[in-house]
Formats: sequence, structure tokens, C-alpha cells
Amino acid sequence: MSDQTQNDLQKALSGVRADIDRIDGELLKLLNERARCAQKVGEIKAEHGEAGHIYRPEREAQVLRRLQDTNPGPLPGENITFFFREVMSACLALEEPLGIAFLGPLGTFSESAATKHFGHAARLLPQGAIDDVFREVESGHAHYAVVPVENSTEGAVGRTMDLLLSTPLKICGEVVLRIHQNLLSNETDFSKITKVYSHAQSLAQCHEWLNRMLPKAQRISVGSNAQAAQKAADEPGTAAIAGEAAAARYSLPKLVENIEDEPNNTTRFLVLGKHDAGASGRDKTSLIMSAPNRTGALHELLQPLSLAGVSMCRLESRPARNALWEYVFYVDIEGHRDEPAIKAALDKLAASAAYLKILGSYPVAVY
Amino acid sequence: MSDQTQNDLQKALSGVRADIDRIDGELLKLLNERARCAQKVGEIKAEHGEAGHIYRPEREAQVLRRLQDTNPGPLPGENITFFFREVMSACLALEEPLGIAFLGPLGTFSESAATKHFGHAARLLPQGAIDDVFREVESGHAHYAVVPVENSTEGAVGRTMDLLLSTPLKICGEVVLRIHQNLLSNETDFSKITKVYSHAQSLAQCHEWLNRMLPKAQRISVGSNAQAAQKAADEPGTAAIAGEAAAARYSLPKLVENIEDEPNNTTRFLVLGKHDAGASGRDKTSLIMSAPNRTGALHELLQPLSLAGVSMCRLESRPARNALWEYVFYVDIEGHRDEPAIKAALDKLAASAAYLKILGSYPVAVY
Repeated sequence: MSDQTQNDLQKALSGVRADIDRIDGELLKLLNERARCAQKVGEIKAEHGEAGHIYRPEREAQVLRRLQDTNPGPLPGENITFFFREVMSACLALEEPLGIAFLGPLGTFSESAATKHFGHAARLLPQGAIDDVFREVESGHAHYAVVPVENSTEGAVGRTMDLLLSTPLKICGEVVLRIHQNLLSNETDFSKITKVYSHAQSLAQCHEWLNRMLPKAQRISVGSNAQAAQKAADEPGTAAIAGEAAAARYSLPKLVENIEDEPNNTTRFLVLGKHDAGASGRDKTSLIMSAPNRTGALHELLQPLSLAGVSMCRLESRPARNALWEYVFYVDIEGHRDEPAIKAALDKLAASAAYLKILGSYPVAVY
Repeated sequence: MSDQTQNDLQKALSGVRADIDRIDGELLKLLNERARCAQKVGEIKAEHGEAGHIYRPEREAQVLRRLQDTNPGPLPGENITFFFREVMSACLALEEPLGIAFLGPLGTFSESAATKHFGHAARLLPQGAIDDVFREVESGHAHYAVVPVENSTEGAVGRTMDLLLSTPLKICGEVVLRIHQNLLSNETDFSKITKVYSHAQSLAQCHEWLNRMLPKAQRISVGSNAQAAQKAADEPGTAAIAGEAAAARYSLPKLVENIEDEPNNTTRFLVLGKHDAGASGRDKTSLIMSAPNRTGALHELLQPLSLAGVSMCRLESRPARNALWEYVFYVDIEGHRDEPAIKAALDKLAASAAYLKILGSYPVAVY
């Protein structure tokens, strides 16, 4: 580039750069103004004797939705959600950072879910087991728990479902994450692969693909996808199903990427705390119900909901662990338990069901 | 709380919430305005026939420093740096997300360093070995590499130092991260711990602490801290030195936290790309030099620097791998290679040193 062209370029750029500097200055001012407002919310609550944290899931969901709806671009909506979650996270942390318990280790999908929802100013508290995640919040060591509850392909996470039955915690939010699986192997020829290692849930998520592409290979379920990758790295003639992280750790080539059966393979996480959330305008309510085991019992059980015009977005049954009922039903419905129609239907349910536990109302996940 | 008090509270809060909503609306507008400016920078460069990416490390460092210096609070400076890195990351990604190669797996300190520097809109490309990290950028598969180069306690990362000698890549930035180590064990009684497993570098980082607290325990170096934790979990009478992630993964209690000898145990990472950075006003320049092995050679070698009043911030020697010289010296100096005083000193160095390679000039890390 000639000196003249270089000069022209620098002149043209300096105008835009001055604009950027001005915008950055305004952003800086506004971010701090917002932080002062958040502090003021805390002060007002304290003056009025309202204890507890200023985190309000329904308000956060409303703010994010309005910003999504009014976003003029060019920044994509997901960036906007990310920024404002981080802004709210930092504002909250000025009082006290939220402690978030989740199934460790760091670097897993659960950590991604926790950070996606609570932002980087939250204090991450990885736990060794799902039971410990619940216990940390029940005991007050953490403010909120983030636990996986269902995968779009493989279904419910049993341990979480069981713990929901007995926990005093309430659901106050949900997070939905995309999950990708890969076939990892040092072999390049499919016909040489005689065994495929993976976690049972990952094998299930890639069931159809394995039937089609590796029908003769033995499927062996191991403790984790990382362990599967290690085995595949050590043993010729084998492959593993695992994510990016395991591929890198064991230097295993990704023979095929994104082999999950469902193109929208997602995992849904629940956020649990001492209280559920207020109404945000677009909410879900989660219930556990039970009925004596006679023909038509489920239909009868659900009648108050259908009569009231309430939509169910999920119904899952699990064998009961005590002798009183044969099955418990996990039901998610659209709407908040404070809405009159929902409230009336829930009251009728409570009268007719042998057992009803309202796990909580919370905003539908915002992206 | 009485209904009256509740009403008063809601009234007091609604004013502040209206302020927050107004601020959020302005933030949304400004963020998108900034993104349009960034797009314009790309267009102007393209019109003037300037190829390549619009990422400019020196400009980014200047912007961040100015924002730090003018930050009125109450948001802490580190939050401000975090937001604006993310804003710049998202603006850049509107054209093409930067691909960042680093030593995997995900969930390691190297990932934290990559994200801290390039923001969440960058595309993370974890690699199995430091050699692969260099190769990915040399081959054009990734835009930038992030590699560990030295730990404040244990010293240089040998493989990175060796690769710097031969790579055509330039250093265009640095990242500094705090690192914590913990003693993990199922034992609660120190006298029962007869072996301590860890990676050699982590053992070195906790050398003094081990001498003082576990003088009789055998120190056994293994491939990674995760592997050490696994061994400690399986074998009674042993402990591991490792980070949070490993403690959670193997459900090993943290017997003692933060046992690193240096209270400021940090790891420094280099950012490498096809070009180094322009002058930002607060820069470093990294060099590799060599001299014939005779008495006083190093002193003579460094004379042009001291005569020119140039400050060295790091000097490290390594045995040379070829027969021409006995040692190579890695030198970091304060200042940019385009500053007249530095330029003159480097010219003199080039004339007197048997070998001189300028690895690049880049902004001092911003927090």
C-alpha cells in the first residue's frame, strides 16, 4: 500500500474510531448508572424490611424478552441476551455474588448451563453428584442449583426426577442447551471398528446412526464419555462417542461429527432455589401427581387441566418408589400458578389427586 | 409483610425499575450502533484494498485501558474489561468469528485464557498438544494461538520456548491468569499420607508447602493433575495436588486449599498470529538472541539495550538445540519495536548478536 493510500485509509478510519470511542464512553456511563439503580433496588427492599436476595427470575426474563423484541440489529439476539445476562450478573454481584451448585467437573455441559443462566459474575460451585447439588442449596451453602432434567432424544435424567419428589426446593427457571456428539477413532476404515464405547445416554442419543453406519459393532457403555475416549485411544479396532473436549484430551480424530439422531439434540436443565418465580407473562408450572392404579386413572387425573383449557407441555411417568401408588406423573403445564385459570385447575387437581406437589412456576427459557 | 407495606415497596421499586428499563433501552441502541461502526471499519478497509482481519490488538488494549482509567464505578474495573472484550468479540464476529487454537481439553486454564482474551464470540479450537496449537495457526486453520509460556513459580514452559525458536508466527498479545492448587485426599489425618501425586509442574509450585507440611511423603509425578486425583481417589494413604475441576470430578475432599508457594501464582500465556501488534502506548517486545560461549558474552550482548536505557522485564536462557551456540536467550523488553529508542537498540543488537529473532511487539496485558 502506498503512503498516500495509507493516509487516506487512516483518515477514513479515524472518523469511525472517534464514533466508537464516543459510544464506548456512553456505554461505560450507562453500565455504571444501571449498577447504581440495582444497588438502589437492594436499599429500598432493605428499608421496607424485605429480606433475601434481589435476584428476580421473572423480572430478568421480562427484561431479556423485551430487549430481544426491540433489538434493531445488526447484533444477533443471542449476543444481546448474553450481554444483558452478564450486566445483570455483575449488578447482582455488587451486593453478593450468587453461589451456583451444579454437577461438576468444570468444563462440562452443566457448567455451560449455569454460566449461560447466571453470567460470569456468579460463584460456580461444582459438585461430585446430583444429590450433592440439591444438598448444597437445601443447606444454604449455595443460592441456586442447576441440574439436568431431560435430554430431547434420550429422555429424563432419573436421579433428578427422583430427588424432585422429596426436595423442599422450588423450580425457578429452566435452561436449554444444544449438545453435539462425535464418533472418535484412530481407525479410518469403518469395517475395522468392532466396538463402540460411550456413556449409556450418549449411546442412546446416537442409536439410529449406529444401527445404520455400524450395525455390527458391539456397543459398550462406560462411566463417562471421557473414559470411552481413553479406551478408544488405547485399543485398536474401537471407537468412542463423545464431545469435543474428549477428542482433544485423548488426541482422537473426529471420524464423523454431529452423529446424534435428533438434529436438535438439546439438554434441558432446571434452576432450583428456596422460592419459585413470580409471573413473567410466559411461564411454565411443574407438578408431580399420583393416582391409584386403576384403568382410566391418568385420564381422570388430568381432566381438571383439560377442562380448564390448560396446555400440557410435558408428561412423564415413573414407577413410584414407595408402596402407596404404582406411578408418579411429572407434568409441565403452560402458565403461572398465580393466573386465575391455572389456580382454579390446580385447586381441582389437589382435591382429586391422591398426591400433588407443585414444584414451582418459572419463566420459559429465554435465548 | 402487610398489604400496605407491600404497596409502598412496589411503588418505590417501580420508579427505579423504570430507570433500569430506560437505561437498558439505551444500552441496546448503543451496542448496535457500535456494531455498525465496526462493520464500517471493515468496509473502509476493504475499499482501500487492505486485506485481512479487522482485529487490532493495540487498538483493543488502548480502548480497554481508557475505559479502566475513566470508569466512575460502582462496577469494578474487571467487569468493565470483561464487558468490553465481549462487545468487541461480538462486533468482530459479525464479519467472521476468530478461530482460536489452544491446548485442550475444554475446561482447562488454557481455555480460560483464550476466552478471557478473545471473548465468547470467538470459535474455540482445542488441540491435543502445544505443537498442534502452533501448526493450526501456521497452516491458516486458526487465526490465533494461545499458548502457556511461563509460570510465576515454576518457570518456563519448555515446549513453547522451543517452538518459538522456529515458528514464523509473531507474538501479538499476552494473557495473565491466577492459578490455585489444592491438596486433595480422602484421608483427614496428615500422618497417614505417604504419597502425593501430581503433575511435575504442580509439585514444583507447591514444593515449599510440601517440605513444611508433608516432609516424609513421597512425591510422584504423573501425566496430569486429573490423573493424580484419580490415583488419590483409588489408593488409601495418598493425596493429589490439583485444581477445583479435578476435586469435583473424583469427589475428593479439598484437605487444604491454595497451597501454592507463591501467593501470586500466575501463568502467562502468549497470543500468536501472522502479525504482531502496532504500538499501544504500553508495550513489550520479545526477542531471542544467541552469542558464542565466551566469558562476558551475555553482558556484551545486552549492552546495546542498557546503553539505550531499555528496561528488560524478563531474561531466560535455554541450552541451544543445535551446535552453533551453547545457549539461546529469551528477552522481553519494555517498549515497542517502532519506538525510535527501541528501534536503534534493536539495530545495534542485530549487528552484534550471532543470532537475533524479534518475536514481536504487543500490548502489556490489560485486566
